[in-house]
Parts: sequence; structure tokens; C-alpha cells
Amino acid sequence: MNPEKQREARGWFEELRDILCSSYEAFDNSSFVGTRWKHKWKGGGLSSSIKGNVIEKGGVNTSTVEGEFSQDFRDKIPGTENSPSYFASGISVVLHPLSPHIPSMHFNTRYLETEKSWFGGGIDITPSLNFEQEAKEFHTSLHECCNRHSKDYYPKFSKWCDEYFYLPHRKERRGIGGIFFDYHNTENWEKDFSFVKEIGRFFHHYSKSIIEKYHERTWNDSEKEQQLIKRGRYAEFNLLYDRGTRFGLETGGSTEAILMSLPPLAKWQ
Amino acid sequence: MNPEKQREARGWFEELRDILCSSYEAFDNSSFVGTRWKHKWKGGGLSSSIKGNVIEKGGVNTSTVEGEFSQDFRDKIPGTENSPSYFASGISVVLHPLSPHIPSMHFNTRYLETEKSWFGGGIDITPSLNFEQEAKEFHTSLHECCNRHSKDYYPKFSKWCDEYFYLPHRKERRGIGGIFFDYHNTENWEKDFSFVKEIGRFFHHYSKSIIEKYHERTWNDSEKEQQLIKRGRYAEFNLLYDRGTRFGLETGGSTEAILMSLPPLAKWQ
Repeated sequence: MNPEKQREARGWFEELRDILCSSYEAFDNSSFVGTRWKHKWKGGGLSSSIKGNVIEKGGVNTSTVEGEFSQDFRDKIPGTENSPSYFASGISVVLHPLSPHIPSMHFNTRYLETEKSWFGGGIDITPSLNFEQEAKEFHTSLHECCNRHSKDYYPKFSKWCDEYFYLPHRKERRGIGGIFFDYHNTENWEKDFSFVKEIGRFFHHYSKSIIEKYHERTWNDSEKEQQLIKRGRYAEFNLLYDRGTRFGLETGGSTEAILMSLPPLAKWQ
Repeated sequence: MNPEKQREARGWFEELRDILCSSYEAFDNSSFVGTRWKHKWKGGGLSSSIKGNVIEKGGVNTSTVEGEFSQDFRDKIPGTENSPSYFASGISVVLHPLSPHIPSMHFNTRYLETEKSWFGGGIDITPSLNFEQEAKEFHTSLHECCNRHSKDYYPKFSKWCDEYFYLPHRKERRGIGGIFFDYHNTENWEKDFSFVKEIGRFFHHYSKSIIEKYHERTWNDSEKEQQLIKRGRYAEFNLLYDRGTRFGLETGGSTEAILMSLPPLAKWQ
């Protein structure tokens, strides 16, 4: 266990939370409401949620917990052969904008320690309407952002994202991709941490700029309908397949914090 | 394998489907629309769905399939030690009424054959508003219906229902219970089959009478809101925990037929 690194990681996740919340509040008439929760063993988190006019439902959650993995998890998680203990700190953000012109956006980064240590996380967006040109620009900027750290990251992590955010029963992707990574440890902690910080800043700038660009554009009923159906798919993915959701519910996390990712309103035909 | 019993069971499930569909169409301005689908190995089903003024979204599905269980399923399912082959025929009904005064209602019965054979199924209802008096009457009639077959059934099957339709992460029941049973085989096939038929008829009469009683009562925004939130919980249960949903998606059933159980519109706060 590395208390120094734990503090540093946690400090950044909480700093980023404050940056994001202030930023989103600035173009919405609503404020984030924070709820603190305690983990059943040690630690807890702060769930900040907004129900606004631009972001219909959004959550920015940070949590830092310590605990012991059950046998079931130990079989799957590195560094738990000798001890079930873990430390986990992270930030998780989901934004469901009211406007169908603005994609739902998801971002998270986390730092894990068992007898090993690593970072995980990702960014991905889920538009409801045609977003082809924007999607290209999103991927180009994200690619550039990753390249500043390693040419290997974007090809590997965007593929991982496409594979992960997939609904096999629908033969559909959840959104239009992004990046996803886990067990990330290049043996250079500072370098890995600087990558994690950079994608946090990327998400901040991207989400802000896309909301600013589209939040005043009007929409019709058919566009709203497409959004509600897309949100149904989003809920399906998160409840059927998302590892973070299952991990959280099965390890005693806060249900409200975990399920803040679910959309405000969703439709199934 | 017992082709005679398979035919009889299937015949009843399809007869009941026609009874239910005609009955629901009679008090709604809409008709059921049927979609036939084929299973990847052998067999298939008919998904009948309605989008009506009284039943906002409803599905009556029958299916009869033959196949082989994967190893993962064989470890859990009786009579598959020597052979992975199975036959399954059943009917599954979910009604999501528009009115928050009428509960969502769920019913299914099925006949399974591996090297063993059994029936499974159940009835349960999920009201959104106060339903206390109605709930008592529902349980009393269901109890009487079960008692005509065995005094043991209601206590055992209603407990099973309460345990099954439970959302541990919310510490909430999905609805107000009913009955749930599986691997039901008393070594008297005719007797077991007559029980299965009787609860099908019970569901027909109960669902019809409760819709007739409440469908003209008006509601306000707050009552509608409560219904949408309750439906969110319903979607959570079905996607996170329902065995039928997972079984269906993992064994190559029809996604549309399996997910017809999801509500037309649901809300997460």
C-alpha cells in the first residue's frame, strides 16, 4: 500500500470533481446537490447530482474506499492471491442532457491498489441523433490527447472501448466509442497518473464545449423520441453488462451513486 | 422425451394466448400485432404485442424450442448430467397499463423436459399506488386457487415469489408478490398440468377484472410520476436479476420477445 500515491490520486479526483461541477453549473440554472455516503467497511464518497435545464440528469461521484474482496472477485482481480485487501479511489461522471442534440457523456478514472496497483477509466459518448462529423472530431481530439502520452494508447484503448460498450443482444454499440482502459501500469506511476489527469481535463473541455455549442438548438418530438429510445438502450447496457455497476452493487457501494448513471426518462417500444 | 405431453402443454399455452389476446383487445381500441421468430436451433415462438389506450404496452409470448444447454447451464439444470438436450414450451405475459391505478401484471407458465421434466411459472403484480385492499383480495383468491390443488402450494410458492422478485440493492420488493414455482413435478403429470392450467385461467380472470374496474378512473401528475419511478425499478429488476431474461438472452432467444417485459416509459430521479 502506498499512502502517498493514494493521497495524490484522491486529491486529483476531488479537484477534478470541483472543476467539473462549477463548470456545468455555470451554464445551467441549477446547482449540484451533494450527498455523502459511507462504505460498509472503510471510506465513502460524495455523490453530486444535478437536475437542470441543460443537463436533465447528471452525476459527478468521487469515492475512496478500502475493503476486502470476496473470493468470487479475488479470482478475477490481480494482486489478490495473498491478501483480499484493496484500496480504490475514483471519479465517475455521467451526463444526460435534456437536448437530443447533445450526446449522453460518460467519463471515469480510478486508482486501484491490491498487492499490485493500476489505473483504469475511460471516456465515451452516446449521441441520439446523427453525429457523424462531431464523432470524427471527438475521436481525432481524443487520439491527439492520447498520443501526447503514447502512440499505443488510442488504438488499444479505443478498440477496448468499442468491445466493452456493446450490447450483444441488440448487436449494437452503446454509443460511438471513445477510450476504455484497465489494469494500466507502465511501471512509471507519475507518467500513468499524468495520462489519467490529462484525460480528465480532456473530458472537462470536451463536455463543456459540446454543451455550449448545442444547448440552444431546438428539437422536435421525433428527435426527442429517438433520444428516449437510445436512453433505453443505455439503461439496458448499464444494468445487464456494466462491470462497474455490478462491482459496485455487489461490493456494497451506494446504490444511489451507482445508479446515477441511469437516464432520467427512457422508453421501450 | 414425451412428444404427447409436449404437444398437450404447447396446445394449452397457445390456446391460453388466444384467450388472453382476445380478452384484452375487447376493452382496448388496439389489436395485438404478432411476430413469429425462429430459434437458432429448432422451434420458435409468436410474440404478440399491443400498444393500446388501456394497456400502454403489453406482450403475450408463446414459444416452443428444442436445443442443447451450454456447460454453464448444465451445471445448474436438473436432468442434464448425461445429455444437454432440452425441450421448452411456455407462455409469458407482461402488461404495463397506462393508468397508474392498474398494476403492471406478470404471468408465465412453462413446461421443460431434459432427462427429467417439470413445470414452472408464476403470477405477480406490481402496483404503483396504494393497493392495500386490492392486494389482500388478490392474495386471498390466489390462495384459494392454489388450495384447490394442494394446501402446500400457496405458502411455498408465495414465499418463493417474495424471495425472487426482490431488489437487494434497493432493499425493496418488485411488487406485492403472488406465486412463483419451478422444477414442479409431483410425479403426477396430469395433476401438475391441471394446476398450471388453472393458474393461467386465474390470471385471465384477475387481469381482466382489475383492468375493467380501474381503467376509467382519472389520475394526476404525481400519480403518473410514481408509476414512472416504479417502472424504473421494474426495469432494474428485469435487467439485473431476472433469470428468464438472462436465460433467454444467453440461449439465443428473441431479444424483442424477451425484452417486451420492459416498461413503455420509465423514470430515474
